Amino acid sequence: MNDSRQELWDRRMDLPLGTASAVYLAAYAVHVLAPGLPHAWHTVLLAAMAAAWAVFLVDYTVRYRLSGLGPWRFLRTHWLDTVVLVLPLLRPLRIFSVYDRIQRRRGRPRLSLHARVMAYAGLTVTLLGFAGSLTVYHHEHTAPGASILTFGDAVWWACATLATVGYGDVSPITPIGRLTAVGLMACGLALLGAVTGSFSSWLIQLFTRDEDKRPPGDSPGAS
Amino acid sequence: MNDSRQELWDRRMDLPLGTASAVYLAAYAVHVLAPGLPHAWHTVLLAAMAAAWAVFLVDYTVRYRLSGLGPWRFLRTHWLDTVVLVLPLLRPLRIFSVYDRIQRRRGRPRLSLHARVMAYAGLTVTLLGFAGSLTVYHHEHTAPGASILTFGDAVWWACATLATVGYGDVSPITPIGRLTAVGLMACGLALLGAVTGSFSSWLIQLFTRDEDKRPPGDSPGAS
Amino acid sequence: MNDSRQELWDRRMDLPLGTASAVYLAAYAVHVLAPGLPHAWHTVLLAAMAAAWAVFLVDYTVRYRLSGLGPWRFLRTHWLDTVVLVLPLLRPLRIFSVYDRIQRRRGRPRLSLHARVMAYAGLTVTLLGFAGSLTVYHHEHTAPGASILTFGDAVWWACATLATVGYGDVSPITPIGRLTAVGLMACGLALLGAVTGSFSSWLIQLFTRDEDKRPPGDSPGAS
Amino acid sequence: MNDSRQELWDRRMDLPLGTASAVYLAAYAVHVLAPGLPHAWHTVLLAAMAAAWAVFLVDYTVRYRLSGLGPWRFLRTHWLDTVVLVLPLLRPLRIFSVYDRIQRRRGRPRLSLHARVMAYAGLTVTLLGFAGSLTVYHHEHTAPGASILTFGDAVWWACATLATVGYGDVSPITPIGRLTAVGLMACGLALLGAVTGSFSSWLIQLFTRDEDKRPPGDSPGAS
Repeated sequence: MNDSRQELWDRRMDLPLGTASAVYLAAYAVHVLAPGLPHAWHTVLLAAMAAAWAVFLVDYTVRYRLSGLGPWRFLRTHWLDTVVLVLPLLRPLRIFSVYDRIQRRRGRPRLSLHARVMAYAGLTVTLLGFAGSLTVYHHEHTAPGASILTFGDAVWWACATLATVGYGDVSPITPIGRLTAVGLMACGLALLGAVTGSFSSWLIQLFTRDEDKRPPGDSPGAS
Repeated sequence: MNDSRQELWDRRMDLPLGTASAVYLAAYAVHVLAPGLPHAWHTVLLAAMAAAWAVFLVDYTVRYRLSGLGPWRFLRTHWLDTVVLVLPLLRPLRIFSVYDRIQRRRGRPRLSLHARVMAYAGLTVTLLGFAGSLTVYHHEHTAPGASILTFGDAVWWACATLATVGYGDVSPITPIGRLTAVGLMACGLALLGAVTGSFSSWLIQLFTRDEDKRPPGDSPGAS
Repeated sequence: MNDSRQELWDRRMDLPLGTASAVYLAAYAVHVLAPGLPHAWHTVLLAAMAAAWAVFLVDYTVRYRLSGLGPWRFLRTHWLDTVVLVLPLLRPLRIFSVYDRIQRRRGRPRLSLHARVMAYAGLTVTLLGFAGSLTVYHHEHTAPGASILTFGDAVWWACATLATVGYGDVSPITPIGRLTAVGLMACGLALLGAVTGSFSSWLIQLFTRDEDKRPPGDSPGAS
Repeated sequence: MNDSRQELWDRRMDLPLGTASAVYLAAYAVHVLAPGLPHAWHTVLLAAMAAAWAVFLVDYTVRYRLSGLGPWRFLRTHWLDTVVLVLPLLRPLRIFSVYDRIQRRRGRPRLSLHARVMAYAGLTVTLLGFAGSLTVYHHEHTAPGASILTFGDAVWWACATLATVGYGDVSPITPIGRLTAVGLMACGLALLGAVTGSFSSWLIQLFTRDEDKRPPGDSPGAS
């Protein structure tokens, strides 16, 4: 019974959560990238961000009540929800879990598993790279001695970090900027793992099919 | 029927497309690396590049007509062709799809799957690295404050980027240079995935064969 | 019989070894990060580190006696113990082998294999990154011309190294600092391998299950 | 018959080739690292290097004659021998193929496949890293504006390159130094592939065994 009520809640919250994610990211982006707007506008943007956060808080609380679990167990089983609640940067990630749930409800997804893994990895990396660039630009461009001075610099730095290239021509120097950087590095490692793992499993699949088609005793490496 | 006409077109365009790719890259290389040539020569080179582009445009249009698909569906199913059409940098990639088609028509390729994956990865990386070095050198060496001043610097930078090493002793500072760099980083990630995936699947193949040969109950890790 | 006495020793030493590991790391951290403490305190901290080392030495000697092996063979089969004895930096690693042994004795571990691999990789990297940052900070911050001047710099540098990003805005210049760095780089490579390998095997598992569920002849790539 | 004569030659050349490899590397190392030796010593060292090269040349010629192949086919099937002949840097690699052949002749090797892959990767990387450091130090430390001034710097740079970290605090600036660097980067990529591939295949092996032991219907991810 709990399950069905949770499912009902999930279904009802899909649109609000997706909208809240998009609103949060858009409001933060405008707030950071257009400091020249009149003060009233910035107040509106901050209010929009607070409202988006409230939607997540309400959703989290209701989900906790519906689960019927103790607080620690809930924290453990819903750690992604918790992290998303605490770190506004990661909120856009919710768009995917919402999208995924909608897709699954409509029946089997069209894309193959490989394509889905690559699409999710690509989109996650794009969203988190954008959010990370915003945060780093926000905290760095006014710091004394900073090398990240424009939003372009921040995006360039985020790309070099996510690809684990790390030129070091521009790099964050403030504590918050560096914390964000560590988060992006972890994303970069995960991205590398996703790319490599997909490639690896795709090759293994090819080989397995290749071997099934051949007569036994014909070794594939000797061809 | 559409299929057979498409195949006929593919077969007919193999040589023109391969030639156009090679001409484009060669003309661009001479244009960028030999600025001291008389003006008339540079006009000829730009004309050659435009002609190569025209061949791709004509091929793309005919392919679209022959497919009988709507524009969006065609974009989705032929995204590589589209990307190659828009970004001249990637045009040399067509050489491989042409080569692949010729090989397949002549019967089963000689190389094993691993060797083919490594050969394609190596050649793609070489071609894109060369094209990327040219573009970055073209746009950087005259920019104020640039660190990439010679074509040698550009090649050195491209190698460090493709291996995801990224020393940062030289790095692009212009928007176009950095965009090219992001493309090369993506290639570097894919290269890493190809190398790692090949190695991984090769080891797994070895283990599988190793286990098949042993009597059951003899665990391979304990030897 | 030797086996049972070894097991008994292992069981008895779990708590002392774990405590000694934690004491060593804590004492070293306070010693390095709080140089302003009165001299007597530092003497206590160094004594605690020596005591922790003595526990490891005693354990190693007893283990050697109980094994009944020659010295070279023991070195070879217990190389991790030997490395941990010689390099104080790696001592915290013992916490895991202790934890692992306790878990195994209590029956089957709760976590799945993937979760365990990721948890071990994450914790090992955190502990070694912390110990590496301490060592590098200890030897670098007073060296002339050093770029790692605060503990925050050292942690930032360790993160960039473990992710194989390597900005190079701060980097060690003393021989001991660089040796530690090489150790952290090896950890970074292993971490990359763990992340990628987990992802890869997880994907392969998904595919295998996916194929088992489908009717034969339905290729998964063509969907 | 050719095969048996080739085998005989291989067996006879094991010791001379291994010795020549070691002599070459040692002579080069002393030549580069001890420039203060009297001139006569350096003449002896260069003679030793020339003699080692002569051994490789003779071996290559005899192997070509015994193979009975045309020059191009021989080049293709013995490309590693050819590369080793042309690039003195890579000569130490021959030690492994010699070691491998000796091991195989004595019967089944003791180490498991994983251990062998890791041992070969580790030893290859160590040897090539040492040879690369020597070459880079040799050509860089007298170049104007160089940042690699001591052999320690060269080793530090080689480690950062092989781990694909690439701080960029020291980096080669001469053409030969950069060519060597590109070779080391390729080694770094291969090392990454070996580490990741081993880890990946090891995990997959563990999972396969894990699944075989469980009753069917018990999914491993849900435990």
